[in-house]
Amino acid sequence: MSAVLTDRRIAPFPPHMGARGACARTATTTIALGLIGPGKVGRALLAQWADVAPRLRAQGVDVVLRGVMDRRRMWLGAARGSLDAVMSDFDAAPSPDVHRFGPHLVDEGRLQAVVIDCSGSDEVVDHYARWLSQGLHVVTPSKRAGSGPIERWHAIRNATRNGARFRHEASVGAGLPVIQTLRSQLDTGDDLLGVDGVLSGTLAWLFHRFDGSRPFSHLVREAHDLGYTEPDPRDDLSGLDVARKLVILAREAGHSIALDDVEVESLVPAHLREVPPDAFLAQIDALDAPMQARFDAARERGRALRYVASFDGRDARVGLAMPGPDDATSHGRLTDNLIRFRTRRYADNPLVVQGPGAGPEVTAAGVFGDVLAIAQYLGARL
Amino acid sequence: MSAVLTDRRIAPFPPHMGARGACARTATTTIALGLIGPGKVGRALLAQWADVAPRLRAQGVDVVLRGVMDRRRMWLGAARGSLDAVMSDFDAAPSPDVHRFGPHLVDEGRLQAVVIDCSGSDEVVDHYARWLSQGLHVVTPSKRAGSGPIERWHAIRNATRNGARFRHEASVGAGLPVIQTLRSQLDTGDDLLGVDGVLSGTLAWLFHRFDGSRPFSHLVREAHDLGYTEPDPRDDLSGLDVARKLVILAREAGHSIALDDVEVESLVPAHLREVPPDAFLAQIDALDAPMQARFDAARERGRALRYVASFDGRDARVGLAMPGPDDATSHGRLTDNLIRFRTRRYADNPLVVQGPGAGPEVTAAGVFGDVLAIAQYLGARL
Repeated sequence: MSAVLTDRRIAPFPPHMGARGACARTATTTIALGLIGPGKVGRALLAQWADVAPRLRAQGVDVVLRGVMDRRRMWLGAARGSLDAVMSDFDAAPSPDVHRFGPHLVDEGRLQAVVIDCSGSDEVVDHYARWLSQGLHVVTPSKRAGSGPIERWHAIRNATRNGARFRHEASVGAGLPVIQTLRSQLDTGDDLLGVDGVLSGTLAWLFHRFDGSRPFSHLVREAHDLGYTEPDPRDDLSGLDVARKLVILAREAGHSIALDDVEVESLVPAHLREVPPDAFLAQIDALDAPMQARFDAARERGRALRYVASFDGRDARVGLAMPGPDDATSHGRLTDNLIRFRTRRYADNPLVVQGPGAGPEVTAAGVFGDVLAIAQYLGARL
Repeated sequence: MSAVLTDRRIAPFPPHMGARGACARTATTTIALGLIGPGKVGRALLAQWADVAPRLRAQGVDVVLRGVMDRRRMWLGAARGSLDAVMSDFDAAPSPDVHRFGPHLVDEGRLQAVVIDCSGSDEVVDHYARWLSQGLHVVTPSKRAGSGPIERWHAIRNATRNGARFRHEASVGAGLPVIQTLRSQLDTGDDLLGVDGVLSGTLAWLFHRFDGSRPFSHLVREAHDLGYTEPDPRDDLSGLDVARKLVILAREAGHSIALDDVEVESLVPAHLREVPPDAFLAQIDALDAPMQARFDAARERGRALRYVASFDGRDARVGLAMPGPDDATSHGRLTDNLIRFRTRRYADNPLVVQGPGAGPEVTAAGVFGDVLAIAQYLGARL
């Protein structure tokens, strides 16, 4: 029993988890949130939180917003109720001091705190390891940590050894359960043999719409006007966004791969990669002839044309592919993402997660899910 | 701050989670397991656990097997290493005393314990609420709790209020992330509009193979010989198993529905429902004519024939359907399950989880995943 007694001395079970369930109904887990980059996703997250806050409190989770920060402003305080007031205070807040942000969130170690980084800024990612080593949890929908410099990634991972959590579920498939599904397989002793699928809602939409009847560039313009693409559509067409997601999945499975290791087929002609956005949009019909040729080649073989990502445990590639009619990537609709995990247990038939993989609402839901997973890990009874 | 100070007095954060991360690397969460019904799934689970036990210990999770029980025997002890020894001791163990089982697992309140019920026995389910109210966690791949009497279900749910956990992820889709996916959507404030799909690997296999070229009964015999069906194939063909899974999903979404509320289309002709198994198998070709007629009707309309389950938030139905070629249930392969969640956030396009939904290995993995989720909730740093 000594081992057990030692365990209990080091890490006592919180009373509300104890076998006697003492004072269970009144136990509350308080979690401080710090939001960096209150854009569409950040504001959608705050709205979702405000919706469920009463129920969460009843379930023993008290979430308090203690900081909001962007490039130009930083608000520090403690808000439980209406966030409108916070956001108007934020609009009038002084310029940021990132080194005061973390300490205020944890209230000198009295609170568990989660930094939610919706900024998409690479400089902010540079602070993750320090925050984590200080015991702050970090959640982000950004792909920059998981697909950025491998040394920084290892530093972030190592900084979680003390129990602080880093989660980035929404970085792949937005609100779809992608990373947690992979983790659950690996944690129970399964091995990832390969992962592939459609990882860009934008490219999914473009290639599901592209039937040869209209020039590809017209569809890109339409997607751009609908806000389906990045402000500069080349950020989608380059395949870099898809490659980042593939790197994140491979790293979650323990592979030390970097973005440079991914073979990327860009849909942007070489001579248009460096020109200004306006110049690109002006010459975008340069995409049409080569894309039409690829489409015709696929149709001749009775196949579809899709932009897919694949990692076989060694080689990572993103680019055009011609799946057959029986392949799920030939179907799917709208902006669906489709992720297929082939593991030792799911070797014959993969484990598939599919659904819309973009948009502020579902992305915020993915981030919120990470926050609640941390809340549970802190003892919340969800 | 007073609220926060109160929170901390009631539920202090375990030191290895604290903002200071004190003695983090040495913190260990010890979890006692009690296995009821060491059949195929139970033994697969113990084998999976033995595989990953060293890594789990390095991650701060020390799992100790303290009890194994079935109808005839009960072994009580404490085993960390080889389980072969345990199972041979178990084979020679005395007859069970269910009231000594739980108290031994928690070691007089010194340990967190998880009862893993792989027995499929309804009597065992009757003990869940008591175990939970005593602080024991309960995990099962069985559908009996989630689809059994509604009063018992509510009693089990209420008994989790003190922090003890009940999880039954493997009861739907085996190792696929089905219930946790639904829960995560609901916990973040989404609403379930409907759920449908293919919930039986056996029926999926039968209808994917059924192309009109061979009598349906020949496929049932083949599936029976391959061990794809229950010993009595009527347990699959009756649709009851599928209806149970649909009830589990509806209840997870907060609907108080019972098995009787599900409209079930049985594939077993009325005159063969009560005869002995051998008599059924002897007259099984009675299925062929009606099934062939259904298949031809579907083919005439360019559709597939599938056995699907659907719940629209009010009505629950399981039975034959004729999905069109664009419907994902027309595809899928082998014994794939396919679960589609339509929620407020996934209204246009559903969130889809697909993959093999049967077999001891993946079912055990689903159970193991539940145990690890509880370990995380107890502070394990997975």
